[in-house]
This record gives sequence, C-alpha cells and structure tokens, in this order.
Amino acid sequence: MYTVGDYLLERLSELGIKEIFGVPGDYNLKFLDHIVEHPNLKWIGNANELNAAYAADGYARTKGVSALVTTFGVGELSAINGIAGSYAEKVPVIQIVGSPTMAVQNAHKLVHHTLGDGKFDHFENMHESVTEAIGSLTKENAVTEIDRVLRAAVLKRRPVYLNLPIDVAEMVVEKPSGPLLPKQASLSAREVELVHELEKALQQAKNPVVLAGNELASFHLETYLADFIHKFNLPITTLPFGKGVFNEEDEHYLGVYAGSPTEEGLRKRVDTADLVVALGAKLTDSATSGFSYDFSEKQLFSLASDEVIVKEEHLEGIHLPAVMKALTSIDYQGYQGDIQPMARLKSIKPTNQVLTQRHFWEAIEGFLEKGDTAVAEQGTSFFGLSTVPLKSEMSFIGQPLWGSIGYTFPAMLGSQLANPSSRHLLFIGDGSLQLTIQELGMALREKLTPIVFVINNNGYTVEREIHGPNEIYNDIPMWDYQKLPLVFGGSEQSVITYKVTTELELANALKAARLDNNRLQWIEVVMDQTDAPELLMKLGKIFAKQNS
Amino acid sequence: MYTVGDYLLERLSELGIKEIFGVPGDYNLKFLDHIVEHPNLKWIGNANELNAAYAADGYARTKGVSALVTTFGVGELSAINGIAGSYAEKVPVIQIVGSPTMAVQNAHKLVHHTLGDGKFDHFENMHESVTEAIGSLTKENAVTEIDRVLRAAVLKRRPVYLNLPIDVAEMVVEKPSGPLLPKQASLSAREVELVHELEKALQQAKNPVVLAGNELASFHLETYLADFIHKFNLPITTLPFGKGVFNEEDEHYLGVYAGSPTEEGLRKRVDTADLVVALGAKLTDSATSGFSYDFSEKQLFSLASDEVIVKEEHLEGIHLPAVMKALTSIDYQGYQGDIQPMARLKSIKPTNQVLTQRHFWEAIEGFLEKGDTAVAEQGTSFFGLSTVPLKSEMSFIGQPLWGSIGYTFPAMLGSQLANPSSRHLLFIGDGSLQLTIQELGMALREKLTPIVFVINNNGYTVEREIHGPNEIYNDIPMWDYQKLPLVFGGSEQSVITYKVTTELELANALKAARLDNNRLQWIEVVMDQTDAPELLMKLGKIFAKQNS
Repeated sequence: MYTVGDYLLERLSELGIKEIFGVPGDYNLKFLDHIVEHPNLKWIGNANELNAAYAADGYARTKGVSALVTTFGVGELSAINGIAGSYAEKVPVIQIVGSPTMAVQNAHKLVHHTLGDGKFDHFENMHESVTEAIGSLTKENAVTEIDRVLRAAVLKRRPVYLNLPIDVAEMVVEKPSGPLLPKQASLSAREVELVHELEKALQQAKNPVVLAGNELASFHLETYLADFIHKFNLPITTLPFGKGVFNEEDEHYLGVYAGSPTEEGLRKRVDTADLVVALGAKLTDSATSGFSYDFSEKQLFSLASDEVIVKEEHLEGIHLPAVMKALTSIDYQGYQGDIQPMARLKSIKPTNQVLTQRHFWEAIEGFLEKGDTAVAEQGTSFFGLSTVPLKSEMSFIGQPLWGSIGYTFPAMLGSQLANPSSRHLLFIGDGSLQLTIQELGMALREKLTPIVFVINNNGYTVEREIHGPNEIYNDIPMWDYQKLPLVFGGSEQSVITYKVTTELELANALKAARLDNNRLQWIEVVMDQTDAPELLMKLGKIFAKQNS
Repeated sequence: MYTVGDYLLERLSELGIKEIFGVPGDYNLKFLDHIVEHPNLKWIGNANELNAAYAADGYARTKGVSALVTTFGVGELSAINGIAGSYAEKVPVIQIVGSPTMAVQNAHKLVHHTLGDGKFDHFENMHESVTEAIGSLTKENAVTEIDRVLRAAVLKRRPVYLNLPIDVAEMVVEKPSGPLLPKQASLSAREVELVHELEKALQQAKNPVVLAGNELASFHLETYLADFIHKFNLPITTLPFGKGVFNEEDEHYLGVYAGSPTEEGLRKRVDTADLVVALGAKLTDSATSGFSYDFSEKQLFSLASDEVIVKEEHLEGIHLPAVMKALTSIDYQGYQGDIQPMARLKSIKPTNQVLTQRHFWEAIEGFLEKGDTAVAEQGTSFFGLSTVPLKSEMSFIGQPLWGSIGYTFPAMLGSQLANPSSRHLLFIGDGSLQLTIQELGMALREKLTPIVFVINNNGYTVEREIHGPNEIYNDIPMWDYQKLPLVFGGSEQSVITYKVTTELELANALKAARLDNNRLQWIEVVMDQTDAPELLMKLGKIFAKQNS
C-alpha cells in the first residue's frame, strides 16, 4: 500500500531531507507512523511548535530545505511566527499540518482544535501572507499539489503549507514517476539584457564594489559568487544580513558594511564607489543601521529575486541562481585597483580583568576555526559578531530582518543536525535564551555537541540601548544557568558547563571547549548589563530616533 | 500631557485590570513606560509571548478581562495561538501590539519585524478570524476606536486587537468623559419570546434537566444560574466544557455529563430527559466524548450566545447575560420530582502501593477545599479531574475546545495573579509542561504559591491512548523535575518540591502542601505511562475512530 503520506515523504527524501521536526497531535499521529517507518527519515520531536519551526528554519538554512509537522489549529498557530520569519528571510520550510478527516470537515463538526464554528479553513488562510504556496490535499489532487507546493518552496526559497487531512494521508496513490525539480532554468531575455547592462557598468566603473546580501545564502549561491569575485578580482563587502556568504579570509573581502557605524575606511570605500553591485541584498534598517548608507541609487546596480534596481529604476526581481551563474560569462577585464582587505586582529593577551564586550568579541575572533558554523542571536550577539571576521568555510546564521528573539537556540540545533561535522557555536543572551530554553532537552537527547555562549547580562540589553536602560521591563528573572543543562536531561557524560567573568577564565574555557568534541559545551559569560558592542550602541541610538 | 497611551490604560483600569502581561520590544517600550508609571497597573513581564497570551487568558477567565502587550510581527505572531484559544473559548483578552511609527509605515520602510515588503497590515489581517474587533489607532480615531474595541471584548467575551503605533501612543488626547460600558441591555422582543417559550417548555416537562456550559463562566453568570436552579428546584449537570459554573456540593448537582462514558445513572437521566435546558453550552467532541450524547434536538432547548436551538430549529444567538437574568422571572411552579445528587467518595485509606491514576484522582477529591481554583491541562489531567466533584466556591479552568497543550501552566499563573486569595492547584502532565516551562521564572519572581502537580508518566499519554502507545513520537526527554524550580530562580524560601510514587507519599505531600501557604508547592507525581483515567481511555478509542 503506497499512500499519499508515503508519496510526500518520498519527495522530502528526494530533496535531501533526513530529519523532520515537529510535535505530535492526534490529527497527525498516523502520518508520523510513516515517518518513523521510513528508512531514510528520522523524526525529531521538539518541545513545542515554535521551537520546531525555528529548528526547521536552521536546518533549511544549512541543508537547503526542511520539513515541519504540526497539528491543526493549536500546533500550526504556535509555529506561525517561525514560518513568518522563514518567509521574511527566504528559508524554505515545508509546513505539514495534520488536520481532521474530510468527513469531519465536510460535516462541519465542532471538534477540538477548532474555533468551534465548524469552519476548517481559518488557519490555512492565516498562512497566506507568510507562505509562497498553500496546498489543501485531497485524494484527487494530492500528487499534483504536493509537487507544485514543494517545487515552489525550493525554487522560491520560501516556506509553504500543506494541509494534510489524516485520512487523505492514508489514501492510496501511485509512486512518483519523475523527478520533482525541473532542470535549471536558462536566462530569460530580460535577464540576458540585465547581465549585459552589468557588463557595461563594470567596464565603465573606476572603483566598483560588490555588496553581497542574504539571498546568496538563501539560494546557496556562494560558489557562483566566489567564481565571479575571483575571475574579475573584485572587492567585496557583505551586509550584516548576508554575512558569511563569502570567505572572510579571502584577500578580496573588505569586511561587513553596516551603514554609518562601519569602520571609516570601508564606509568611504562603499559610499564613494562609482558602482555598487548589490547581489541578493536587501537594504533593511537593521542591515544598514537605520538606512544610514551614503550611496545613492545612481551608484547602485542591484540584482535580487524580489527586486532589481538599475539606474534608479525599480524593476521586477529575477531568478537569482541563473543570473549568478551567468556572471562569470561577462566580458570584463577585471578590477585593476587596490583592494584593502579587512584588518585582522593581532593576538590578544587575556588578563585577570573583568570581561568586557570588547574583549569578548576579540577573543572570539581568535577562537573561530575553519568550517565552524556561528549562530548569533539578534541582539548583543548579532551586533557583536557581525563585525568579527570569520574563517574560511565558515557559515553564519542570524535573523536580522525578522529578528525574533529566542530564534537562534532551536535554529542552531536544527543546523547542527543538518551538518553534524561542522562545530556549531551559538552566541545568545540570557533574555533571548529564556524564550526557547526547553529545546535543551532535545539537544541533549540527540547528543548534540555545540558550544553555547550564554551572555548573562541580566536582561534585554538590545532594548536597554534603544529605550529604558534601567526600566524593570528590561529585567528578566535570574536563572541558574550553570545547572540548567542538568535539569533538562544532561549529565557529566553529555554536557559540561563553565562560568566565566574574567578574560583569563574565558580563555581557559575556550581552550577546553574546543578540545572537547563529545559533550555539549555550555559557557555562561557574565558581563555588565550596561556594556554592549560598539555597533549596538550606535544602532540603539539610531533605532530610538526611528521610533520617535 | 495626557496621551493616547494614558487613555487606553485608564480604560483598562476602569475595566478592573490591575496587571498587564507581555514581552517588551522596541516598538512598545515607550508605551511600557506609561504602564510602569501608572499608579494602579503593574507590568508582568513573561518569558515569551505565547506564555504571556496564556497568562492573560487565565487572568481574564478569573478577573473578567485582561490585557497583553506584544511587539509588531514577531511578538504578536508568537502570541496568536493563545489569542485563538481565547477566541474559541470566549475569553476577552485585549491584545495591544506596539508597531512602528506612522512615518515609517507610510513610507513603507524595510524595517525589522516585517516581511521586508514595506507592508504593515499583514499581521493585523491575520488576526481577523481570531478576534472580535480590530482597531488600527491613529491620532484621529484613537479615542473612539479604543472604546469601540474594548467594548466589543467585554460584551462579546472575545479577544480584540489594537494596533498601536509608538508615536500614536504618545499623541495628546482628552481624558475619557464618560464610562466605557453601556448600562446592561434589556431583553429584545425575540429574547422575551424565547424566555416565554422556555417557560412553556418547563411547565410541560415531566423530567427536565439543566445542562450548563462554558459560556456561563465566560460571561460570569454563575449567580444567575444558581438563582434559576434554586428558585425552580431544577436538577443540573454540566459539560466538562463548563465544569465549575455551578456549586458541585449543591444538592441539585448531578455530576458532569460527558456523553457515553458518563456514569450510567446520570447518563440515562440526561439522555431520557423530556427537556434538556442547555445554557451557554456547546456540544463539542471533547465535551461529549465524540458527540456520543443520546438525547436528540427534539429534547433540547439550548440558549447560547452563538446559537439558539429550539424545537430542532437552529437560530441566531442571544445576549446571554440579559436572558440568564430574566430566567427567574418565568412562571413555573418548579420541578417536583426526585433529584439524585452525584455520589461522593467515602474517605480513602492510602497504602504503600504504587500510585495509580484511579487512586490519584480519588485522593484529589479528598484534597480539594472550598474556594480553591483547580486548573487542569487538556490531557490526562482534564479527563481525570472533570469527573471529580468540586467543593463550593471553587473555580475550574480547562481548555477542552481549543486544547493547546502547555496552556494551563501560564494560564494558572495568570489566574493566580487575578485572584491571589484563592489557592490555585494545577494538574499538568510532563509532556505538556515542557512546552511552557520557562514561565516558572515569572512564578518565582512574583512569589506565587500555587500547588503544581506534575504528572510524570514519560510523555504524551493522551496521544498514546489515541494512537501509537509505544511509538517514539509520544516519548519526551526525561527532565529532572525535582531540580527544575531551583534553576528558574527558586530557593528554599520560595519553593518546595516533592516526588511521590506511592499512595502514602502522595497523602503526606498533600498534607504538607496544604499547610504551607508561603511557597510554591511542586509535587512530581510518578505514574505508569500506560495508566490513564477511565474517561480518557474511553475517549481515546472514540477519538481514534473519529480520525479514521
């Protein structure tokens, strides 16, 4: 018996998915049986649905796509903030919602997990603005709808929604007869024209600069970008919302450009470039410190899937993969000027002094290693880490546009599951960690061994920088971060904790954590609640102004 | 300077609200200043927004209405499952969303917490089907919109949504010039007619029974119900979705009616009644064990705000408070037959035997005291407690229609804050507790002293009863429930923990917990994962059938 559920799982497996996230509910239990029985899929039960959505988002960023199973109403709505974040930041998460049988729905029964009004399309409709495609599966349409919706997720890099009534999941269908994804599309006439225009613009430019953004990570186009940069010897900067898409040890890399607070040399280089080639970039407030960039649209040639901007004209977006691939084909002799790669830190000497944000991020710069995945919570951590140069083959995960606090802890775990061989480092503040802490149980059950830096500075520091530095609403309950992992199922075999308050203590913990690959490393970093990374202090003032 | 924010807070205070729940975000920080400064309002910061929404729901059930403040996009979507639950179960929660300034919105800026498309109405629109009214505040409409939306919440007993741009909150307005709520409406002609029809039906009935439901709790009409029952000597039963609306020690009370699994005598009494007067009742699957009631619409006279059913006709709903108040005015000599009040347990003798579900709920029956508030998570706990008779002046909180697991822990805390003098008892399973555990930090910070029963039976027992008793997806990570409260900020002064595995250990813990009013009581109750309350075992089979 080959069922709709089996068909769906086979397609997910075909896309490279190996783990499926979610929370059971009585409208999805039978479908979960098929996951458990599938030879190439593993069920990862999360502590709650929002955490599951975050984990699926992190998994998709690293693996390319992910799947999430929740139950009707209660489950899907708990997850919807995570789905919205995936939509905003272009992460293809396949949300599969187990719903009541067609018989129950058609009879408009007053069953649990509904609003009690006999209607079953409320929650599906609520997903319209945060998903690329929605499929309501029936026996008749299941195969074509599954294929259509999954294709939309993968090609558009956005979440999609499948409404899977439990009885439909059990209905018999044929196996897939061909591959899910079409061959890579070729350039449209308009895209060919755009590539030519870029060619001309580059030929005429004296001091061009490439500004890379998040869509290159979303579409996994890092290799095309590297080929383009190297072939034409171009200087490249990234937005914070795009950090990590280019090797930061490469001599073409100038550093992160974040508008006015950017290091002076780089800021001038970008703002005065006669051509800013923006690739997959989005100039949001948090990526540009409140729109404080000083180049104009006259200087800008921006190619992205949402929108193209050329000669101050705003045009429809393009199919980014095909265009990025074509960039090496242009006729251009390459950039001839000097490139000033970003400054790197000399080694630092830890002392017995109390830790500051400044020292901490310098120490982290020395700690990063080739191939690591660094995950930074939107707050102190993101703004601290975004100016720290990464090592080669590193990945970077943040969520600067959507900026949902608590996101990174489950997201990091999802990404770690997607790529077990990359050491994952999470930087998260105490205020954010409290939102999603229960996922620690999953981390320990799955024997994950990331290095987690819990920045304990007694509350919401990013908010303090914007408004109310000493207000009680920016305080949080003080937890015992040292013992936390032990109550969530940890033991000496699975986790080790550190608490550091001085530079030397940090140095020792970093050394020990790096050497210990077999346990989750939990490093509580105590810093003053009024201390913040320089970028955040500047940004706090800019955001306060934006809010007045 | 009297601002829109002040006006809103004054109206909330007028409604009796003393605590406001939520999570700070940069789009609501300035508004929070006004809460902190308000002499009669207190800010309760929650660990995350879903927990905040649950806490606000619990507060509203007990206090009559509540308010919740979240930030745009990320915050409100994290809370939306809680709002949907309040909508389904008719709980008036006022959701106040701090949004970017009008200038930012009108310029369609790509700011954080948006989908990056320059649109600011997505999330408000997503609330349409789960709120009674939505107000988008501007300087011009703020006063009238606040009043309109708040009135809708209170009168319709449903959540509402206020979009409050941070700059609008700071704009100057006049103070309220009159009271928010109109005087109680009188009966419409149609309602007068309905009351007369009920009068006739009662006069003709030989063995009528009253079936009370959740709307009587939602509208706080318990006193009108009691007056009606006592004046006419009527026998009364409640649905599980409505338990607690009538004094269960009263001699007119027959017990909980839950369809086919109901105790035989009561089941027959209701199913064979020649008149079932349903008041504020909704016959949902979880309230009737999958629609397994055996009375027909011919027997039914149902008055509720959603819908009226008389003589098999389905009619528009009524304004329940006015109608309930009018019920004592009807001309009826009262019920003359016998009433068999529900059987009560003789005292039980605890032994050294391992605890069973059966013994546990019997012991709880003996433990309940006048004035307690019992909160039961939808799962083992709800089905276990719903057949246990309550003491007088007790309140009961559950969520059987929406049934979002994890709901009750924050909801209980919200209710405890609303009524500090009622001892709150929470019954929750380990599987459910994991979803919202971080709210323990808030409980300890606020020095709340409920008695929490954590039923540790290694996973999702309610799901095991429906499907997959031994499947891994119904397992959860095993936490150290004994040490949990200590890591979330607890100390010997603020919390005491117990772990009980036998009848005697339970008896001792119950005795100690009842005597200790000054600390949170945390009782881990270990029971076998295959053991379940009788009602749940029956219901599990019925739901499994409904899902096939």
